[in-house]
Amino acid sequence: MADMKSYRKELWFHVPGRRAFINITPQVEASLVECGIREGMVLVNAMHITASVFINDDESGLHHDYEAWLEGLAPHAPVDHYEHNRTGEDNADAHLKRQVMGREVVVAVTDGRLDFGPWEQIFYGEFDGGRRKRVLIKIIGE
Amino acid sequence: MADMKSYRKELWFHVPGRRAFINITPQVEASLVECGIREGMVLVNAMHITASVFINDDESGLHHDYEAWLEGLAPHAPVDHYEHNRTGEDNADAHLKRQVMGREVVVAVTDGRLDFGPWEQIFYGEFDGGRRKRVLIKIIGE
Amino acid sequence: MADMKSYRKELWFHVPGRRAFINITPQVEASLVECGIREGMVLVNAMHITASVFINDDESGLHHDYEAWLEGLAPHAPVDHYEHNRTGEDNADAHLKRQVMGREVVVAVTDGRLDFGPWEQIFYGEFDGGRRKRVLIKIIGE
Repeated sequence: MADMKSYRKELWFHVPGRRAFINITPQVEASLVECGIREGMVLVNAMHITASVFINDDESGLHHDYEAWLEGLAPHAPVDHYEHNRTGEDNADAHLKRQVMGREVVVAVTDGRLDFGPWEQIFYGEFDGGRRKRVLIKIIGE
Repeated sequence: MADMKSYRKELWFHVPGRRAFINITPQVEASLVECGIREGMVLVNAMHITASVFINDDESGLHHDYEAWLEGLAPHAPVDHYEHNRTGEDNADAHLKRQVMGREVVVAVTDGRLDFGPWEQIFYGEFDGGRRKRVLIKIIGE
Repeated sequence: MADMKSYRKELWFHVPGRRAFINITPQVEASLVECGIREGMVLVNAMHITASVFINDDESGLHHDYEAWLEGLAPHAPVDHYEHNRTGEDNADAHLKRQVMGREVVVAVTDGRLDFGPWEQIFYGEFDGGRRKRVLIKIIGE
């Protein structure tokens, strides 16, 4: 195999509400085509600590279930329940929810494609929206 | 160091019941020997979104504790508690449990071996068995 | 791009109490300078199965919130609630907490630096201290 190559791209998001799940698989696939790497790994990570990147199903009922489940595990309110919110923030719950869903995924690149099972899709999970936030795509391989 | 190499292998599982934890460390080690990569990284990921790959202890009491704990965090029943199950599935809880335990692990390869601490073992975590499902091993390095 | 290089370093910790969060970003940055890799990926993982490496905010109120939240999700006591503790251990809760917070992070290396968003910091999360434990830093790239 030949020399190692690398590629970097940022995706920008502005979720108007507090929370959302956005399918970013097409953007990651487009990055892979653009860089021409055929064998290697893709890292996709939230660059903010109140957001996640995760892999699961693109099914709206499931996304509703995630939303309700995470709210049960780490409720937004009462906001004064959290010491972090004494800093003037109201997003402590978002820092907790992001740990359950994860910061990043690493996906194999094989024959120039995301090496995925039948239902795998990559999502940006926003838990504290209302401002511009970023995801990093980094690809290494050859 | 020399040119980058890559290697890919699928492991197949058919868990008869709904849930199980299976130690797959020997298969990952065998892949490493087979490919001859001495320095790099191994990605091991579930290719299905109701299963996990994670690293922890090979101790049956702990596996029982994981099972009971995950069932408390994301109960299987009542199945109509979950919107996802209106699609005809009964596995919404499996999609939630998998997020707690994780989709993938990345392990360092050093001197041709998994660069592990004293008790680290790699497990396939099945949360919705009864059919054939896959794990991907991808190794890059030299 | 040139040939692939790799680098490995262990960090050692001895947390006197049971639990702590320690910012290890400076040590990971120092490793990056030391190895001279400009483009690639860094893997940082706990080598023990009752500890985590994760990325979040260096804010003491948030760390207090994580501590309280994890204790609610996976209480330490009563220790005989867990089958794992029948082996003579009292750390079953630490194995559970570590799954929520994660074993490892993978960070992009770009232009010789950790490719981070504005608030990202890397932490060692100890859930069963009182003895010497390790974190592995593995860097691949060129």
